[in-house]
Amino acid sequence: MSIITLLTDFGTKDHYVASMKGVILTINPRATLVDITHQVPPHEIEEGAFILANAYSSFPRGTIHLAVVDPGVGSQRNPILLVTGNYFFLGPDNGLFTFIAQREKIRNAMTITNPKYFLSKVSNTFHGRDLFAPVAGHLSLGVRPESFGKRIDSWVRLSIPVPEVDGTCLTGQVVHIDSFGNLISNIDEKTLLDFCLNRPIMVRIGHKTVRTIKRSYWEGRKREPIALVGSGGFLEISVREGNAQRVLKAKKGDQVKVQIQ
Amino acid sequence: MSIITLLTDFGTKDHYVASMKGVILTINPRATLVDITHQVPPHEIEEGAFILANAYSSFPRGTIHLAVVDPGVGSQRNPILLVTGNYFFLGPDNGLFTFIAQREKIRNAMTITNPKYFLSKVSNTFHGRDLFAPVAGHLSLGVRPESFGKRIDSWVRLSIPVPEVDGTCLTGQVVHIDSFGNLISNIDEKTLLDFCLNRPIMVRIGHKTVRTIKRSYWEGRKREPIALVGSGGFLEISVREGNAQRVLKAKKGDQVKVQIQ
Amino acid sequence: MSIITLLTDFGTKDHYVASMKGVILTINPRATLVDITHQVPPHEIEEGAFILANAYSSFPRGTIHLAVVDPGVGSQRNPILLVTGNYFFLGPDNGLFTFIAQREKIRNAMTITNPKYFLSKVSNTFHGRDLFAPVAGHLSLGVRPESFGKRIDSWVRLSIPVPEVDGTCLTGQVVHIDSFGNLISNIDEKTLLDFCLNRPIMVRIGHKTVRTIKRSYWEGRKREPIALVGSGGFLEISVREGNAQRVLKAKKGDQVKVQIQ
Repeated sequence: MSIITLLTDFGTKDHYVASMKGVILTINPRATLVDITHQVPPHEIEEGAFILANAYSSFPRGTIHLAVVDPGVGSQRNPILLVTGNYFFLGPDNGLFTFIAQREKIRNAMTITNPKYFLSKVSNTFHGRDLFAPVAGHLSLGVRPESFGKRIDSWVRLSIPVPEVDGTCLTGQVVHIDSFGNLISNIDEKTLLDFCLNRPIMVRIGHKTVRTIKRSYWEGRKREPIALVGSGGFLEISVREGNAQRVLKAKKGDQVKVQIQ
Repeated sequence: MSIITLLTDFGTKDHYVASMKGVILTINPRATLVDITHQVPPHEIEEGAFILANAYSSFPRGTIHLAVVDPGVGSQRNPILLVTGNYFFLGPDNGLFTFIAQREKIRNAMTITNPKYFLSKVSNTFHGRDLFAPVAGHLSLGVRPESFGKRIDSWVRLSIPVPEVDGTCLTGQVVHIDSFGNLISNIDEKTLLDFCLNRPIMVRIGHKTVRTIKRSYWEGRKREPIALVGSGGFLEISVREGNAQRVLKAKKGDQVKVQIQ
Repeated sequence: MSIITLLTDFGTKDHYVASMKGVILTINPRATLVDITHQVPPHEIEEGAFILANAYSSFPRGTIHLAVVDPGVGSQRNPILLVTGNYFFLGPDNGLFTFIAQREKIRNAMTITNPKYFLSKVSNTFHGRDLFAPVAGHLSLGVRPESFGKRIDSWVRLSIPVPEVDGTCLTGQVVHIDSFGNLISNIDEKTLLDFCLNRPIMVRIGHKTVRTIKRSYWEGRKREPIALVGSGGFLEISVREGNAQRVLKAKKGDQVKVQIQ
């Protein structure tokens, strides 16, 4: 039984995702298909990379993660396959796997060039259906990664902002806002703990100061912004039973500053 | 073959739902996963309870219904499992199963406390992934309900508005507005028939009077509001090929009055 | 293993789609269910027909395509089943299968009238759950099409606008706008090539002129509208890493004119 996840910026109102699934099931009718999301904002590779990084490791060993946020479809960008100890990652070589390559050892990487595993006619505008879906289908049937193309030593990595320490201030930024309005930063738990050394801190976002770090959303008072380390291991700002994005009028890219009180 | 349904307020743009599915499939790769919805408005337990109540009984005997609308995650609220003659219901003890407990005989109820069935590290913010998903996975493999925790005799029930009769007037309210804009009330068919006793009625919502009860949407004239008993067994106000919510400027909680003409 | 696709205008916030899936799985727990989309705008049969036409042929032989955009539910309109060499199409007889009948040879067509294959109580408002879902379930178990009702010779076809040639001008219209904002016309590749005969062309939409036909989105300059033949085989207007609908302030039904330069 093989699991294939799908992450795209195709939305769910068109036929695009279904076409990909149909192609996969034509090749491997026993594949289990799981949507990660199809609501990555159009062409936003970094957002797709972030969602994938938060989802992939919950899946069983052997899962094929197929990700298609692909503004360069039809250009010279390569389709690639990255193989780690536990997973396969399949998609365009445009930085979608930046976080994966930071967190996992890549055992094998290759371009996908063997047309034997593509649909017989490949369009210039929909490689999700014509190239990536059939390759995922064949991979799920046990075709060896080496069969799809040539080994490569490097692939595109996005330049991702990292938190910086300057004296008594740790500065990061909002990298994702979830559907609850939680503001998720790029400050990971270890960086935060190393910086704090058990000293009391406060968190600043825009002109707002959040004085206490909580352990769960529930510990806040209604309407009051709190800071906590979320389920993905990053510092986030949240409002109990509310929406921090709206309460704080925040947006992606806003600075998040942690200061010793 | 075991079926697990999922109902949450997590939305579909983030990784949250996929993470839950990955955890379940890691434990039971043969589970069949079916989304009920993930678009319950954030933290709206009653709305989640209503959708679950309309969906659960269409599924085969033995289905596990996993529902996570959980503003109290990380607080003292209990995770619970309710067992009826046909189904398992799994989620936080906050009222999500209010309608289920009205309609079904609960044979067995328990808190979920046995960490053996949780992920090894349980966050304070995402029990959907760390606690409920693995418990659902193990339950689908045949682990007995008693293994998860202790029996309980009571659980949280929401106080749900019920229709009231006052002389020649039956008063209920709009409890759900569907994606077509149909206004679904809490007046069930039996209460309506007992009240009418075959006398002609009219329905009032706001300042608008609807004079006839129809059997299907199609019987109305275009743009004209009609009342009918919908597929869930409740009185609803609808507009043929239109949107009653917009035509009547109605909202959830609005009074619906049935009067003898 | 049988595959059933679902296409509706039910949205994903209510229980409607899940109820249909529950009914199917009760009859055939081994069915593989794939969503095409549930975001067809309410009651828009032609839009549903278009999405279905773009998706169906990617699925394996034997797939059952269940489509429910059904403003006439409860009226005299017939539920029908169309059988082609490769697929089954199931839904209300209101034009949803117009494009299918243009592209595929219909081997067998019948009304669905045998209550043996319906739920025991059929509502007047939700045939998706009470009639179409159980019929799809039984069909996926191998029940013969002839068992569901009587053969018919004709079914409803929408009157679909076709492109017209007038001297040096080929005129079509925007028939779909996808979630990227691409404007998809009803001018198919063959009609376009026959008209052009390798002469240079330009495309006009509203007051905007697009002078070059590209092969992929990527070949355009950022922000500049381009025309290309999309993955469905139709002329579309697109903006690289942008949204043609917004850039051109276009809407469904707008004229698209191809002229010899």
